[in-house]
Amino acid sequence: MDRLLSKIESPRDLQQFTPAELEELAHEMREALCNVVADRTAHFASNLGVVELCLALHTEFDFARDRLIWDTGHQIYPHKLITGRYHEFGTMRCKGGLMGYPNPHESEYDLFMTGHAGSSVSTVLGMRSGDHLNGQDDRHAVCVIGDGAFPSGIVYEAMNNAGGLGLKLLVILNDNQMSICPRVGGLGDYLDRLRVNTLYTGLKSEVLKVLNKVPVLGDPAERFLAQLKESIKAGLHGGMLFEELNFHYIGPIDGHNIPQLRKYLAMVKDVDGPVLLHVVTQKGHGFQPAAEDPVFFHTPAPFTRDEERVLEFKKSSSKAYTDVISEAIFDQMSKNEKVTVMTAAMCQGTKLERVREQYPTRFFDTGICESHTVAFAAGQAKAGLRPIVDIYSTFLQRSYDQIFQEVALQNLPVTFVMDRAGVVGPDGPTHHGVYDIGYMRLFPNMVVMAPGDTHDAQQMLDFALKHDSPTSIRYPKTKAENIEGARAPVELGRAEVIDWGHDGMLIACGTLVTECIKAAAKLREEGLDVGVVNARFIKPLDTETILRAIASSPFVVTVEEGALMTGFGSAVLEAANEAGESTAHVSRLGVPDRYIDHAERGEQLAELGLDAAGIAETCRELAAKSTKKSRRVS
Amino acid sequence: MDRLLSKIESPRDLQQFTPAELEELAHEMREALCNVVADRTAHFASNLGVVELCLALHTEFDFARDRLIWDTGHQIYPHKLITGRYHEFGTMRCKGGLMGYPNPHESEYDLFMTGHAGSSVSTVLGMRSGDHLNGQDDRHAVCVIGDGAFPSGIVYEAMNNAGGLGLKLLVILNDNQMSICPRVGGLGDYLDRLRVNTLYTGLKSEVLKVLNKVPVLGDPAERFLAQLKESIKAGLHGGMLFEELNFHYIGPIDGHNIPQLRKYLAMVKDVDGPVLLHVVTQKGHGFQPAAEDPVFFHTPAPFTRDEERVLEFKKSSSKAYTDVISEAIFDQMSKNEKVTVMTAAMCQGTKLERVREQYPTRFFDTGICESHTVAFAAGQAKAGLRPIVDIYSTFLQRSYDQIFQEVALQNLPVTFVMDRAGVVGPDGPTHHGVYDIGYMRLFPNMVVMAPGDTHDAQQMLDFALKHDSPTSIRYPKTKAENIEGARAPVELGRAEVIDWGHDGMLIACGTLVTECIKAAAKLREEGLDVGVVNARFIKPLDTETILRAIASSPFVVTVEEGALMTGFGSAVLEAANEAGESTAHVSRLGVPDRYIDHAERGEQLAELGLDAAGIAETCRELAAKSTKKSRRVS
Repeated sequence: MDRLLSKIESPRDLQQFTPAELEELAHEMREALCNVVADRTAHFASNLGVVELCLALHTEFDFARDRLIWDTGHQIYPHKLITGRYHEFGTMRCKGGLMGYPNPHESEYDLFMTGHAGSSVSTVLGMRSGDHLNGQDDRHAVCVIGDGAFPSGIVYEAMNNAGGLGLKLLVILNDNQMSICPRVGGLGDYLDRLRVNTLYTGLKSEVLKVLNKVPVLGDPAERFLAQLKESIKAGLHGGMLFEELNFHYIGPIDGHNIPQLRKYLAMVKDVDGPVLLHVVTQKGHGFQPAAEDPVFFHTPAPFTRDEERVLEFKKSSSKAYTDVISEAIFDQMSKNEKVTVMTAAMCQGTKLERVREQYPTRFFDTGICESHTVAFAAGQAKAGLRPIVDIYSTFLQRSYDQIFQEVALQNLPVTFVMDRAGVVGPDGPTHHGVYDIGYMRLFPNMVVMAPGDTHDAQQMLDFALKHDSPTSIRYPKTKAENIEGARAPVELGRAEVIDWGHDGMLIACGTLVTECIKAAAKLREEGLDVGVVNARFIKPLDTETILRAIASSPFVVTVEEGALMTGFGSAVLEAANEAGESTAHVSRLGVPDRYIDHAERGEQLAELGLDAAGIAETCRELAAKSTKKSRRVS
Repeated sequence: MDRLLSKIESPRDLQQFTPAELEELAHEMREALCNVVADRTAHFASNLGVVELCLALHTEFDFARDRLIWDTGHQIYPHKLITGRYHEFGTMRCKGGLMGYPNPHESEYDLFMTGHAGSSVSTVLGMRSGDHLNGQDDRHAVCVIGDGAFPSGIVYEAMNNAGGLGLKLLVILNDNQMSICPRVGGLGDYLDRLRVNTLYTGLKSEVLKVLNKVPVLGDPAERFLAQLKESIKAGLHGGMLFEELNFHYIGPIDGHNIPQLRKYLAMVKDVDGPVLLHVVTQKGHGFQPAAEDPVFFHTPAPFTRDEERVLEFKKSSSKAYTDVISEAIFDQMSKNEKVTVMTAAMCQGTKLERVREQYPTRFFDTGICESHTVAFAAGQAKAGLRPIVDIYSTFLQRSYDQIFQEVALQNLPVTFVMDRAGVVGPDGPTHHGVYDIGYMRLFPNMVVMAPGDTHDAQQMLDFALKHDSPTSIRYPKTKAENIEGARAPVELGRAEVIDWGHDGMLIACGTLVTECIKAAAKLREEGLDVGVVNARFIKPLDTETILRAIASSPFVVTVEEGALMTGFGSAVLEAANEAGESTAHVSRLGVPDRYIDHAERGEQLAELGLDAAGIAETCRELAAKSTKKSRRVS
């Protein structure tokens, strides 16, 4: 099954293969992709879709010297298979193994570590511009960007700049008619028209005759030449959104036909100025179930299979915080018709399908356009609605300025529910949601919450939708838990004291409160009485409760699943400082000032000392120190 | 000179005026605009350009109920003149007076407080969507956006979403062929073609005949109808970038012809779905010097004039930090050909004209596209160049995610020079650069610097361009100063001790160090020995020096021109906390957790206790307290 694949040490080895062998290689690569998802969740359908494109690119270019960026990067697997990483392929997304995204530390063929969509045109244009200034115009620059990432504003900014600079540049639009969710918006309609409507392309009347003779997805080398010549000769820039930005538009061509891809790539290599090559692929191509349901197979649960069928999924039945919040959103929408919800192409990841089906007029998928999403929500809030913006913590970074200007500065009641806030496991550094505490609490008017458990998450959403200013709720990618016993209601700026302890206090921000409770239980068995506070509010902070803990406890530990720098513990230090309290006996647990490698979330928490064992260990150490100190004094 | 203007209490009063009176009113409004800039720096040319458009909009719509957003907002002055604020117009941009941007606290006709470009389409679409869900489809929604803001990615995201939703919406493209600086990029070329090339528009062959009969900037009501009818009837979406996003494109029309503007506005009111109305205006229209040099007259220095000429400018001759940095950039570029510089339509504000002229191939103006700018710089850095990104602190917020992913995560040597970092005076809340300390220091690998004076600014740029990771330098909008005496060289993570003090220490972050030195001198006269540290590095912090000050001083005050929450003082607390030091005797001066109103920068600093007097007063209070405490102990 890996006759050819096992031979490839570098993409240069592809040159020895016949066309038939390249087809066989494509088949072997699909087998490898299927094997990887058999026992782990990984990106799947998008990788199946770019196998031929990847082979064509690496045969026609030499990316040891030429520049290649796979936008977003989740479709990097075929590229990894043929750039010297086949033998490690089984370690994909495991601790210490290959990353599921491009990683320059793994290979010189990966230029940027990415995971957020849309920046490929900018970075590849930057490299192209740099090579140009360095006198290396022979280095080709190519990026491959999906139609899902394409509506992202930065792509348009980059194309506008590229059109102005006029440097040779190849942008390949990988059009599979899908974002992670089905694509949306005017641009999606436009691409559909480009694909199916020969009349449309035919609006360039000079080219019409040529076009009518050839099928849309045929092999019309003549059409390409005619298009190009005519558009240059006659200055006909009409008909194409891309040409209007000074790009040469070429396509659409069949993205699963290696010889055709190679022929076009060879041709566009010599075109001066920026080119947009429109390649049509099928997400999930080559494994029927994935081709039929590419949304589900974007990152499927592990499964067993035969050649053409899924035999069984290894499903986890436990409920995650994502489920808790999506259900709470559904409930709020059923109670209050002013409530709307928006997502940025993450309907599946945020589990909002049921909302989309039940309340289609109040559900808004903007596509991968987080900046717009937030400003759009602000407009709705201004019109009296109660919009909920449901975006992963890491992707909401793309709306920083809109959170500032359109929401916080106006003091508009937009509610941010920030999923994947914390360490996210196998996706790794580009996806950790560890900066949002700092970026949210920084803005005046913003209320920042982190639920301790399921109860809190539900109550906080209810609170947020009644509160008359911007609110945010952050929660991690993990199984939902429940704190036992009677619970305090969620009130603005009030923490919940789980237990007071004589020997020390844990002040937990967010769902790690349950780890703190476990740690405290363990310590109590050892004779150490450590209390736990469920902070709930990062802003406004419950200074009364927190200062009481600081004033009365031999040691205090703040615990957060976020960056220590500017984070929750830092907010506690600020509050104590304003009150003139010493914090020499306060310790802070959280994410240190470095990027955290991919691994299972549990492994990451353990490494950071943020699981129950690590928290307990920190308490033991602090208790030992504080005992010594009191001895010295007495 | 204000016969009509003085009568207008609300835009509804415009209904009583004849066309001739509206022309007279336009003249009076221009007089008022000229008067305002006679004795203060304010936005000028852009306001002159939209007088007629503003009058036409307010006669054809009722914005007490309809929705209107002026994108960015610097062209809001004519709107303020006719929405009940004429009599306060002389207070423009003064403390307690009118804001130079839209302000909902001033008038119900201002819907969003803005200042950053590009979000108008999103917010107005949000309001339109909200009104629709509220059953108020009779409320029209309009935004006016300049061709300078138009390339901003969020505009494209919003238009894509609007094209998908299909709601009635009017986007007016105010095309004056200018950004703040001359416009750039493929889109600019496209707009030029639209303006001048009838053949181009004529590519819709069915419409060609009609089009060829009418002048481009004439009054072709028939053309509009033909365009519209034909494009709907025949499904001809070719030829127009905007139509390809499902917008109806109409124009270009003359933006200084009130009757024509009114006719078109009346017509498009009834068009279903999103419309883009292309209006051509002249930036600076009606005052010849401004029309001739709209870049200079974007925000000119105060000047005296007669009807048609500038008589004299009231110029300030003192050098600002902006000058220091732009000269340092120039010097670096002359020494090292790997150094490039990029700006986002702020060539004038950042004083990079000389660089643009001398080093055109290494100067990049991307237009108002900050997200792209940063990712583009990352690409250049990857190709071995040393790009400098010169963007105001507040606008760099738009690149938060690219600073994270494309620069810091890759550890690429991009240098950010953040102008206007601190309180910015009359521009007010949308423009203060007070969040960058938090957002820069948060990311691993990033070096964050704040120069104490001219010497530091120059040395830090030199240091940054030799350092092999991302760096940032923040400096405020103020006169450049020089600290006297021998100076320590700039070294990574090293503060500069100006003086040690026995009674207390000031640890200053950035150019407020000179205020601290003045405060210390004053205090010394009063017998209080307070030392000063020029922190220089926010990250990595000089923990050795700072901890020594904390350990040895009766009181310590951190001083920064930035938000206290997550800021420099907070970094000091974190460092002390990690070292187990008490910080009960540390106070932090900076910008508190609220938005700071517009006023002169000096007034703002005084209000915040950040001038020499305020800093000295804080020291006196702390000295009094610390003396009391030591007495109690002794």
